[in-house]
Amino acid sequence: MLVVMQQGAGEPQIQAVIDRLVEMGFTVHRSTGVLHTVLGGVGPPECYAQFDPADFEVMEGVKECHRIVSPYKLANRHFRPQGTIVRVGDVCIGGPHVVVMAGPCSVENRQQIDECARIVAESGAQILRGGAFKPRSSPYSFQGLALMRDAAARHGLLMVSEVMDASQIPLLMKYSDILQVGARNMQNFNLLREVGGVGKPVLLKRGIAATIEELLLAAEYVMTGGNYNVILCERGIRTFETATRNTMDVSAIPVVKKLSHLPIAGDPSHGTGRRDMVLPLARAAVAAGADALLVEVHPDPDHALSDGAQTLTPRLFAEMMQQVRAIAAAVGRAA
Amino acid sequence: MLVVMQQGAGEPQIQAVIDRLVEMGFTVHRSTGVLHTVLGGVGPPECYAQFDPADFEVMEGVKECHRIVSPYKLANRHFRPQGTIVRVGDVCIGGPHVVVMAGPCSVENRQQIDECARIVAESGAQILRGGAFKPRSSPYSFQGLALMRDAAARHGLLMVSEVMDASQIPLLMKYSDILQVGARNMQNFNLLREVGGVGKPVLLKRGIAATIEELLLAAEYVMTGGNYNVILCERGIRTFETATRNTMDVSAIPVVKKLSHLPIAGDPSHGTGRRDMVLPLARAAVAAGADALLVEVHPDPDHALSDGAQTLTPRLFAEMMQQVRAIAAAVGRAA
Amino acid sequence: MLVVMQQGAGEPQIQAVIDRLVEMGFTVHRSTGVLHTVLGGVGPPECYAQFDPADFEVMEGVKECHRIVSPYKLANRHFRPQGTIVRVGDVCIGGPHVVVMAGPCSVENRQQIDECARIVAESGAQILRGGAFKPRSSPYSFQGLALMRDAAARHGLLMVSEVMDASQIPLLMKYSDILQVGARNMQNFNLLREVGGVGKPVLLKRGIAATIEELLLAAEYVMTGGNYNVILCERGIRTFETATRNTMDVSAIPVVKKLSHLPIAGDPSHGTGRRDMVLPLARAAVAAGADALLVEVHPDPDHALSDGAQTLTPRLFAEMMQQVRAIAAAVGRAA
Amino acid sequence: MLVVMQQGAGEPQIQAVIDRLVEMGFTVHRSTGVLHTVLGGVGPPECYAQFDPADFEVMEGVKECHRIVSPYKLANRHFRPQGTIVRVGDVCIGGPHVVVMAGPCSVENRQQIDECARIVAESGAQILRGGAFKPRSSPYSFQGLALMRDAAARHGLLMVSEVMDASQIPLLMKYSDILQVGARNMQNFNLLREVGGVGKPVLLKRGIAATIEELLLAAEYVMTGGNYNVILCERGIRTFETATRNTMDVSAIPVVKKLSHLPIAGDPSHGTGRRDMVLPLARAAVAAGADALLVEVHPDPDHALSDGAQTLTPRLFAEMMQQVRAIAAAVGRAA
Repeated sequence: MLVVMQQGAGEPQIQAVIDRLVEMGFTVHRSTGVLHTVLGGVGPPECYAQFDPADFEVMEGVKECHRIVSPYKLANRHFRPQGTIVRVGDVCIGGPHVVVMAGPCSVENRQQIDECARIVAESGAQILRGGAFKPRSSPYSFQGLALMRDAAARHGLLMVSEVMDASQIPLLMKYSDILQVGARNMQNFNLLREVGGVGKPVLLKRGIAATIEELLLAAEYVMTGGNYNVILCERGIRTFETATRNTMDVSAIPVVKKLSHLPIAGDPSHGTGRRDMVLPLARAAVAAGADALLVEVHPDPDHALSDGAQTLTPRLFAEMMQQVRAIAAAVGRAA
Repeated sequence: MLVVMQQGAGEPQIQAVIDRLVEMGFTVHRSTGVLHTVLGGVGPPECYAQFDPADFEVMEGVKECHRIVSPYKLANRHFRPQGTIVRVGDVCIGGPHVVVMAGPCSVENRQQIDECARIVAESGAQILRGGAFKPRSSPYSFQGLALMRDAAARHGLLMVSEVMDASQIPLLMKYSDILQVGARNMQNFNLLREVGGVGKPVLLKRGIAATIEELLLAAEYVMTGGNYNVILCERGIRTFETATRNTMDVSAIPVVKKLSHLPIAGDPSHGTGRRDMVLPLARAAVAAGADALLVEVHPDPDHALSDGAQTLTPRLFAEMMQQVRAIAAAVGRAA
Repeated sequence: MLVVMQQGAGEPQIQAVIDRLVEMGFTVHRSTGVLHTVLGGVGPPECYAQFDPADFEVMEGVKECHRIVSPYKLANRHFRPQGTIVRVGDVCIGGPHVVVMAGPCSVENRQQIDECARIVAESGAQILRGGAFKPRSSPYSFQGLALMRDAAARHGLLMVSEVMDASQIPLLMKYSDILQVGARNMQNFNLLREVGGVGKPVLLKRGIAATIEELLLAAEYVMTGGNYNVILCERGIRTFETATRNTMDVSAIPVVKKLSHLPIAGDPSHGTGRRDMVLPLARAAVAAGADALLVEVHPDPDHALSDGAQTLTPRLFAEMMQQVRAIAAAVGRAA
Repeated sequence: MLVVMQQGAGEPQIQAVIDRLVEMGFTVHRSTGVLHTVLGGVGPPECYAQFDPADFEVMEGVKECHRIVSPYKLANRHFRPQGTIVRVGDVCIGGPHVVVMAGPCSVENRQQIDECARIVAESGAQILRGGAFKPRSSPYSFQGLALMRDAAARHGLLMVSEVMDASQIPLLMKYSDILQVGARNMQNFNLLREVGGVGKPVLLKRGIAATIEELLLAAEYVMTGGNYNVILCERGIRTFETATRNTMDVSAIPVVKKLSHLPIAGDPSHGTGRRDMVLPLARAAVAAGADALLVEVHPDPDHALSDGAQTLTPRLFAEMMQQVRAIAAAVGRAA
């Protein structure tokens, strides 16, 4: 941890910073330069946990403050330089295979979810995705999950579904193989803590205004609870461009690979918001190194309950699977 | 609702759009131009509720699609052209008085919250703010709220506190005069629906990546439940600029005034993230027409449990109140 | 062109809009709905040229205004549905081959640029890129261009170099095969008009805060001068994310393909600003459909005059070329 | 300058960084922590000039790199802690008076610019603004400037006009009191260097995607040429919000005040792009501490040659001047 004092900062200002660092438990090293005095603090992990650079940057005479020690440790690549492979049933995410999770935005009825599962399985994908809790329904309904479980089982698929609230965890644990934490809940620390205590993998989606560092901090929060099976997911950020609903930050994929050992998926459906952009961005994500894809597909997207504009038709999905296989092969992987 | 077809769109493409509009319940008017065919749809409110322009923009041959009817009705200025005044006890928000809500980020203990209340009251503010639920604490703890209520009462203040989860509503209803919905929950539709059913005013904060239209849609969601006492709050959006933690969108204040009848507050603490920027932005917000301010103040910000960097000292808060009074007077209001 | 009046707009307000449209040369169709009156204007191209929706949106009683006719015509895909292939010598950009343009940020001396050209040619790229005008140097120096021309010729390459000012056009015309307009000049309309009048292809880079529509409008400006050989280039936009210098908007590639017939290149060097992110983003750009790549390579990037951090070493460049070839093959192209 | 090595960085990686720093002229201090090795470099100014943190951040084993010494010196508040007052004739910008510069976007003809000058003078503003060079006109036309000079003189005003190209400087020097560098040219280093060598004040506008630090670096560039009379101007940045054309970053005003001694103006016309938002944002800018305002006014905005939507009518301008005077008084200044 480093505090750089402003040019001309007075001794009382410097001393106030030193006092505060010492009070927090840091040992302080002072280095007096021609222009700037720099204070370096070293201490036990507890010191860093409560340390916020902004608190020092508003002190009198301080120019800037840098956290040197990475704010995430368990999610850091140094923790597992060889990378993490998340195992779900017989599927491995983070290994040589690019895993595809696909399905409708919402489970609508038995026939629809079964038909979705059939499409997903026929094209060779491994995991069925789908939302079982409609925001407006009772938090105690579970029918969607049961229907989805049946459909997945019938077609030999695993399944992933979103947990929107800590109270839904028991149900999800019963039915789903992976628990998805959505973009809007990426900083719902209560929920993150709860899924950190369960024994199933978590798919953690990046918030539309979250930096990559914040995504890794959210993962850290889950891992602190003991659950190391976290799969990250890039699904588009909000920028000034309006041609696509979000701007899919494809570079987040290799950046995460460099900073963390966790596998990362790309979601070109939410990443673009447009069905006609899903295929090129699915290819781009895999080319950039994504370990998995999350895509929306529906037998009849124009009549889907939600997200129709970004949902693939069965034909487009089959085409995507073929293209993704070709790209995966080109980067030395299978799909 | 208008669908503009691409130049050269074929008759089957046009017909597919017409069919889908009719299927949704719209009556369609077709206008054939030299370059573009434009389809206008008119229908009962139910049609619009399920209408998403994106669904049409991915159809073959479609150039663009516009929702003509505003997606919010109750929050629209046309609903109450004279503007809404939210009454809380004897305080009116949205009237000639600029109301100041101030207090710590978190309630820490009896002495701290009482001291905060004293500071807030002495400088002439009317409402005590403070967070009672620490994200990590049990959702059933209520001690913070009770302490806050006591402190507010002792110093003749009303109070506002955040509800982070629907399960906390009963407690908030018991202790707080206003229920705050935080920026991260602005699109938590479950929570919005629940606070729409209560009999107390709601302070709804703009998400850091939310457009003004999305803020008004969130308000609409609350109002649909029957609770029309919504106070909006601008608290900074995320941009590429890093000199401040967020970029406070001061223009959101007059934009909301034009589009909606609801009162709007400015939060220069979260809006800037820096104690030394709170005063100029508090002045700017009031100058731009804000009906209220939400600011963080603490007897000893450097030792505050959270948000210290953006929290005012008692001296700065007193100074802010004086400046805000001068600006309020300059725009024909009191503070 | 459509003007939607606010709910409750009065007859004098409606009439004022009609009058202004008529004054501009539009024929106006009025459609009175239950809630909104919509005014549609049709007219000759001159009307649209001077039409700015913002001018109407500030008129009394107006809710919103949409330009229906696309603001670009020559750059529009409808103008050449089959797509444009830009021919430079025996190289075709926009055809089945993915073309690679590579070289240093700046020409430094004869030996450096020759060495660069050798590296570029050996790995199988076709075009040498490099900046000959240092911002601080005299606008009449031409030595860099001559050195670059020699190096390109010796190694059987074509060349592209940036024109920073209209006064440099004659020199560029003498030495370079393609004239590059940089991101900062994307809306320098004087320069765009001038390169619109020359007989060589133009490589037009997207500004860091420019929308895709603005990029196409800039291309339109060049094409209006008669030069239809425009190659667009995505090179990263500015967002809140700081892990990469810019956020490369990979989705801009398929979006441009849909909206326009012009070929588009990707620049992963500027797109990421980091050498270690160039390879994955080069792969992603080609996977998404890019017709060309623009990358920086230098025999010794750590001692390059500029842009060292984002410049590839010869070894990384050779690796990139191999990877790009594999991806190109996977999308049915050659590289 | 500080380089923080990654956890586990090897000795050869550390040595490579040290070697490069030494090669650049830095004296290196090495500090070995439990987790991270930190290398501090101190050296003469020339070292810093060529130092780019990005160059080090891509080196093997480097975690992050910070420039400690501010990249701008002359523009830094430490250079003139008391602040700079730019004198233009008898007008002082940066002193107790809030100066208003107003006029049309473009000079259209003698009558129009004279009428504008009359409106500006009558309401008590001091400086006439206006664009004399239409982008499409010959760079040697000067008529607009002469007409503007006459109009300003007749009404006792000073004038400011934009220089779009170094070749226009002689003409601007002849006619205008202040040379404006527009947002699109904020990083046109050739132009910045040229206006750094002239004897008249420069009004430097922030680019729509420029950080405050980049704005100060651009000012530094001008000042390095010897011209210390630089007035900065906040005029809106590009964000995801579309309700206003740009998002006026009002907090940039107090941030600049803290970081620099240069005066700063606010431009609510470009800052919002909407006539109906100019007044509240003009008030906000002055409340936040702006030293000057730049606004567009025209006798008949609906028929203005350009920027009509954001241009005030004479009546609105008079109203704005009154409001601005009240706000200026409230912050202890005159207007």
